Amino acid sequence: MNKNILGVEVPESINGLGSLRPFDGKRFSGTEHEQAKIKNPELPESKIVKDLITAIQLSGLKDGMTISFHHHFRNGDYIVNLVLEAAAALGIKNLTVAASSLTDIHTPMVDHIKNGVVYRIETSGLRGELANQISHGLMEVPIVFRSHGGRAYSIASGELKIDVAFLGVPSTDLYGNANGFSRDGDNSSACGALGYAMVDAKYAEKVILLSNNIVPFPNTPCMIPQTEVDYIVELEAIGDPKGIMSGATRYSTNPKELMIAKAAAEVMEASGYFKDGFSFQTGTGGSSLAVTRFLKEKMIAKGIKASFALGGITSQIVKLHEEGFVKKILDVQCFDLDAVESTLRNEFHHVVDAHFYAGPGIEGAAVDQLDMVVLSALEIDVNFNVNVLTGSDGVIRGAVGGHPDTSAGAKLAIIVAPLVRGRIPTILDRVNTICTPGMTVDVLVTEQGIAVNPARQDLIERLAAAGIKMETIEGLKAKAEKIVGHPNPIEYGEKVVGVVTYRDGTVIDLIHEVSR
Amino acid sequence: MNKNILGVEVPESINGLGSLRPFDGKRFSGTEHEQAKIKNPELPESKIVKDLITAIQLSGLKDGMTISFHHHFRNGDYIVNLVLEAAAALGIKNLTVAASSLTDIHTPMVDHIKNGVVYRIETSGLRGELANQISHGLMEVPIVFRSHGGRAYSIASGELKIDVAFLGVPSTDLYGNANGFSRDGDNSSACGALGYAMVDAKYAEKVILLSNNIVPFPNTPCMIPQTEVDYIVELEAIGDPKGIMSGATRYSTNPKELMIAKAAAEVMEASGYFKDGFSFQTGTGGSSLAVTRFLKEKMIAKGIKASFALGGITSQIVKLHEEGFVKKILDVQCFDLDAVESTLRNEFHHVVDAHFYAGPGIEGAAVDQLDMVVLSALEIDVNFNVNVLTGSDGVIRGAVGGHPDTSAGAKLAIIVAPLVRGRIPTILDRVNTICTPGMTVDVLVTEQGIAVNPARQDLIERLAAAGIKMETIEGLKAKAEKIVGHPNPIEYGEKVVGVVTYRDGTVIDLIHEVSR
Repeated sequence: MNKNILGVEVPESINGLGSLRPFDGKRFSGTEHEQAKIKNPELPESKIVKDLITAIQLSGLKDGMTISFHHHFRNGDYIVNLVLEAAAALGIKNLTVAASSLTDIHTPMVDHIKNGVVYRIETSGLRGELANQISHGLMEVPIVFRSHGGRAYSIASGELKIDVAFLGVPSTDLYGNANGFSRDGDNSSACGALGYAMVDAKYAEKVILLSNNIVPFPNTPCMIPQTEVDYIVELEAIGDPKGIMSGATRYSTNPKELMIAKAAAEVMEASGYFKDGFSFQTGTGGSSLAVTRFLKEKMIAKGIKASFALGGITSQIVKLHEEGFVKKILDVQCFDLDAVESTLRNEFHHVVDAHFYAGPGIEGAAVDQLDMVVLSALEIDVNFNVNVLTGSDGVIRGAVGGHPDTSAGAKLAIIVAPLVRGRIPTILDRVNTICTPGMTVDVLVTEQGIAVNPARQDLIERLAAAGIKMETIEGLKAKAEKIVGHPNPIEYGEKVVGVVTYRDGTVIDLIHEVSR
Repeated sequence: MNKNILGVEVPESINGLGSLRPFDGKRFSGTEHEQAKIKNPELPESKIVKDLITAIQLSGLKDGMTISFHHHFRNGDYIVNLVLEAAAALGIKNLTVAASSLTDIHTPMVDHIKNGVVYRIETSGLRGELANQISHGLMEVPIVFRSHGGRAYSIASGELKIDVAFLGVPSTDLYGNANGFSRDGDNSSACGALGYAMVDAKYAEKVILLSNNIVPFPNTPCMIPQTEVDYIVELEAIGDPKGIMSGATRYSTNPKELMIAKAAAEVMEASGYFKDGFSFQTGTGGSSLAVTRFLKEKMIAKGIKASFALGGITSQIVKLHEEGFVKKILDVQCFDLDAVESTLRNEFHHVVDAHFYAGPGIEGAAVDQLDMVVLSALEIDVNFNVNVLTGSDGVIRGAVGGHPDTSAGAKLAIIVAPLVRGRIPTILDRVNTICTPGMTVDVLVTEQGIAVNPARQDLIERLAAAGIKMETIEGLKAKAEKIVGHPNPIEYGEKVVGVVTYRDGTVIDLIHEVSR
């Protein structure tokens, strides 16, 4: 028997309940709260700490740990460089950087790789000088590329354990309720949906928010709740507004892109999936984006509406939503300021995390409910495998993104691409890097013809019945080669510089060092 | 080297990355998805299963496991009884029932305790015949009582591991995006905020939703996201509308309650916390509820507004919000239909889970940002300890609820109670069951006087400066005894029938068997 602080005799244990701990008048016995007063009427509780260095020290970040970042600030992001600089200043080495994506602005990471601060990288994509040097063999350990869904699931399942997440947020209150915009302050760093960051916040061991906007409590509704946040650092700026977001994505006026978009919309119309309540996702490429324009005309003509639009969201989708053609939006990432403002304005423009969007686990994801997706490609091969990661010179300059996730989930996955780009054919015998397996790709639409995956005889029949002319993908490849000839193979070295994983973490392809 | 299904040579392992698995063309290698097609264009994915028995079998529920329930359907709940009946039919024994609360309608559980289906119970409260029999020694193992915040934290921290959560939801789509109301169907089972259920959904090993409203995908925004749901069972009815919710909570017209409310509002006004941007929570008791009326008058007079109101939400709070007196609402549980409808109507009426509301972990909770809370009590003692669980006969007939959470979090915790109830004094030397420790209680307001906890000299000074008359709590106790005399002690047996835990899981008091 122990007496608790109120004089109650508490048995050491009770059958069926196990051992008991007596109340000791502390706020939270046996935790970091042990020292805190049970009640604190003096000050509001706050998670704001003095500076980034302090936050890193409090987080317990040590050599060999994994830190994570989101890419919602795109080419305006200051966070990755700031944190690596601080880690370097603290003498921390051998970090794994698990970013949702990396881009041109992250060139300073080259030095942090050379000086041993960064040992390993996981990301969806890589661009600019960092990508170039990695393609030429900068790192000892290959980059692990994951799709947005694959990354989310690897985090949710514990395969990828994040020790400390560093998340830039356009607004937060003093307790960590954070949003991708600000209702109270300036919106210079607004990025809208924080879909990738939300997964890190949920699962990382420690979460540090960095923000230029500390707003009054409670900053609700919020994308990241206080329950997931450990420390907050206030900064003058978390990104360059010009690089984070621009106004509205414009429709293409390129005649070739418009031809492709029109043809893709015709395929969608004839596919059997174009019915009242259908759902779709379109990317940001010129053709992919323009599809929505033709789709709207067809929806009016047929008198139908979409149940939801998914994905990275653009002003075009917002317009369709506000005009009543799309009932709901599920948004993991905003592609323009119009979309950002819509997340503030429209109740049914709902922000979802990357796990909800595209996770491949047994619990399913929104992509599994998708009827149709229109996707771009750098290369596609005769087996319908798609490359969205490496250029025709073999250098990394793209991102896996949600490509394999939406392709596998959607009932109809359409790839839109020009037959040739400059002097380079789009269709190859074998793409240089497989990101999305052809067994999940249904149709290729080019400005010079359409090819359907022979595995989809059902689709071939429906398109034929609608009078849509189809060719074999080999036929389209021959057309391309007639214009620009057969491309020379890229010269690769032995070293593996990238491991491309499929949604479930298995290896779908390897990227080798470019030898020239 | 292994070749993957696309012919890529994948090394067994890579230095720095460990072993690699080759892509095998499966949707999710090595999981339940192993057998699923990588792409399924035929049917929409769905989590709806045939019936409750099937869902239980699929969940893997076995003898000795822990199942959980929420109490948002209050005395109209059908779920607990249905599930225990199904478990009994399947011959499952020795379950731990971890409910957020239990009430009169759960009387059938008495039989399931007797026949061995239920071995142990965790709950915030207990009422009716089940409570009566348990108070008289029905169970072998004592009930574990947890506050709303304590329960949430014990679940989040893994101390309380839920194997299968059975969550009744007023609407869900076929993938599990669920809400406490329906935007598309009938709202007969609408309960508004699902704050307690949200914690179970997040942390339970398996989650089964039960609903009478399957609505079109996506049921967004949603309180429970699809990523947390395993199976869905469609039922004719999940509760009795009359027991779940009623229209609007009415103000008291009881003169004694109004006197107490008025005095409590005066204490709040003079406390030093009544400034622009203050925050508060009021309960549903007559006096506690009526406080909002007087508070509004004082806000108008002083020209200030509240930043947020927290807690179980009533029509009174909704009205203050819609009139602009309360900027934001944080809602864990709706107390009336007006509040339910407000969650649908008002963007800043934000539903939060119990962990966000009141969790005592290092990550903090909304209660820690609370300036003032007004709470009821069955009994309070000269050390300001409060009992909200057992009646004056020692029988369990209440609930711990958020009482200890808000008391500890708020800068000012006011207890409102009549000096006597019938022939029973409210103030005792020692309450029969300590639920909230006096060290977190600041003021007692009765219709016959006010007592401030001597630990709060700062408060005593401010109230005195405002001309508020105060007495000692011993003085108030003497007044009560002058009216009704000193109560006879309750006769308890040896057997422990309940263990009352504090927010951090330590034992604050024990409840013994009532011997008569």
